[in-house]
Amino acid sequence: MPPPPFLTALLEPYAAPPPPTRPHVTLTFAQSLDGKIGGLHSTPLPLSGAESMQMTHWLRTLHEGILVGGATARGDDPQLNTRHLPPPARDAPPHPAPRPIVLDSTLLLSPSCKLLRNFNAGTGRRPWIVGVGPPQCDAEWEKRRTALEGAGARVLLLDLSDTEREATRTPALLALLRAQGVRTLMVEGGARVIRSFLSAPCNVDTILITTAPVLVGPGVDWADGVGKLDAWRVVETRLVGRDSVVALVARPEEEDAT
Amino acid sequence: MPPPPFLTALLEPYAAPPPPTRPHVTLTFAQSLDGKIGGLHSTPLPLSGAESMQMTHWLRTLHEGILVGGATARGDDPQLNTRHLPPPARDAPPHPAPRPIVLDSTLLLSPSCKLLRNFNAGTGRRPWIVGVGPPQCDAEWEKRRTALEGAGARVLLLDLSDTEREATRTPALLALLRAQGVRTLMVEGGARVIRSFLSAPCNVDTILITTAPVLVGPGVDWADGVGKLDAWRVVETRLVGRDSVVALVARPEEEDAT
Repeated sequence: MPPPPFLTALLEPYAAPPPPTRPHVTLTFAQSLDGKIGGLHSTPLPLSGAESMQMTHWLRTLHEGILVGGATARGDDPQLNTRHLPPPARDAPPHPAPRPIVLDSTLLLSPSCKLLRNFNAGTGRRPWIVGVGPPQCDAEWEKRRTALEGAGARVLLLDLSDTEREATRTPALLALLRAQGVRTLMVEGGARVIRSFLSAPCNVDTILITTAPVLVGPGVDWADGVGKLDAWRVVETRLVGRDSVVALVARPEEEDAT
Repeated sequence: MPPPPFLTALLEPYAAPPPPTRPHVTLTFAQSLDGKIGGLHSTPLPLSGAESMQMTHWLRTLHEGILVGGATARGDDPQLNTRHLPPPARDAPPHPAPRPIVLDSTLLLSPSCKLLRNFNAGTGRRPWIVGVGPPQCDAEWEKRRTALEGAGARVLLLDLSDTEREATRTPALLALLRAQGVRTLMVEGGARVIRSFLSAPCNVDTILITTAPVLVGPGVDWADGVGKLDAWRVVETRLVGRDSVVALVARPEEEDAT
């Protein structure tokens, strides 16, 4: 059973080599009807229905890396794998799994998180943790790095000078991942990562937003503080179960000028 | 050509008499994918596609009254009629048009607005303007009332004591409209009216939210500051053109207890 054709068609441009400075990037997340991606105090929300959850897992098979922010990794303890897919046919290869990548600037992720447990159990790929540093003389930070590495993580570091300003943080992260060989990257949130990736159109090629028919009330609003968003063009709206899914692609720059 | 069956099915409960204190109430509005119902500085946004716009006009034919807030009436200068519907068949009666009602507490609506122009041209029903008052010794207010009435509006007044607190404002408005014979009311926004109607589940029977596949960026967020929203139950999600439409109904009170 292959991924749904609309996903492969959407990502067809990723067959071309990515730019030298970053991978092809797909930003995707599920929101409630009232624009929330998490509950009060950032509690995780089960938003997607079974059908759109499976769609997301198919999307994961089409990317080499999958990124979440540190707050999401700590709050949701995600597995970032493809467990909701039907098993591959007899004698077929397993579904490709993307590399789990956590942007966790101060290395606060727990060494007993599911990503590392799955890796050590042989059911998940080695996670990469992207921190910032090393900070000067911070023994606690060194301890955390040692613990994460001891638990199997690969720790990559962004230079502090690249991350001091919001505008350079995401390009520096993308350049680092590209240099490490990641050609296609799926970005799943949370709010801070979404906002940071959306802060400039040149960070993202494709956006897939799943809207679940749920009213949440107070919670985490991904669009809060996000700037102008006219750099994307809608390709398609479709119903996936009871959720609606909208796919957008970055407008070519020549279109901006019109 | 009758209204779409899913709309008539959704509003079937309105065939029963409404409670003595309020009409049957349908709250409906269109939002962008990022939860905006208007642009920066409350500029109107063309969000709905042609198909969902027509759906909204069918919905209007199923209500006796249609309400918008004063800021929306002044900013959008809406007609609140059914002009996007196909003309009725030969010899068939015209599409029923709801009574336009503007909640305009200080009576700032222009006497030359489209609602009054249409009424005077014989192409629209007489609009009702619901103000608060009369205020004590406010000659300007009296002038505005006289001008609106001179232009053909019927001015109804809510008692100040009923509108001082947000919690009693909407029930008082609904009681007034019910007393004036309105049995079914469609509420179209804007943000303040939406928030006020959603502040208590007992104000609204049915919600229809149209989400257009558009990213707006900074603008008017209807959900900003809206409280807990678990009193509604999703009936249906459907694609209407490129928009998705979600219908919700108030949960019976016994469900709340579970």
